[in-house]
Amino acid sequence: MAYQPGLHIIAELSVTNTALLAQFRDAKDCIDHIIARHSLCNLGEVYHNFSPAGFTAVICLSESHISLHSWPEYGRLHMDVYLSNFLNDNDAITQAIFDELVYFFDAAIINQQTIKR
Amino acid sequence: MAYQPGLHIIAELSVTNTALLAQFRDAKDCIDHIIARHSLCNLGEVYHNFSPAGFTAVICLSESHISLHSWPEYGRLHMDVYLSNFLNDNDAITQAIFDELVYFFDAAIINQQTIKR
Repeated sequence: MAYQPGLHIIAELSVTNTALLAQFRDAKDCIDHIIARHSLCNLGEVYHNFSPAGFTAVICLSESHISLHSWPEYGRLHMDVYLSNFLNDNDAITQAIFDELVYFFDAAIINQQTIKR
Repeated sequence: MAYQPGLHIIAELSVTNTALLAQFRDAKDCIDHIIARHSLCNLGEVYHNFSPAGFTAVICLSESHISLHSWPEYGRLHMDVYLSNFLNDNDAITQAIFDELVYFFDAAIINQQTIKR
């Protein structure tokens, strides 16, 4: 099997609907659907709500990971979507997941960096 | 509280001692000590060994996350260390953790990117 770098998208997002940033419940539903839709393998996950508001989440995939860190007090969400290409070329899926999450949060992209690794 | 971007170090490492990449046990011991030494808050973690060899790990911190994805068949380790600066300026700790993990794996840095976010 050839060593194929994967795609890692790193972004800072602005989210006006800060209710989506206050607790992880709706974001987790969205991510669960995304993982199922793209037939990815969830190896385990950590979702944590902060008090009084905000959440952090890391989802460990056999293909690498997704992370979300929300800052409702600033209307900000930091997101990573990273899928390796060990068994399949997942670059299009990585981009699709990123786009789906931006759509879910109705977010504006403040900064985005794309790394092949 | 001012919004202070944190430091995210993203690296591809070359590791000659591939026994350290085959299973997560020793890496987890190292990370547990690092988290305690720097008084970080571990909110939960996922460690997974692949068959026949290789592991993936994400550690969710109240300060953000650490991830490791190993490829023993290529002598490669992909590592992320990201700590936000919400309550404290953690940039020096982020760099220290990265350096400590590079030392633990006796790794050569193939690619490293540093993002303020």
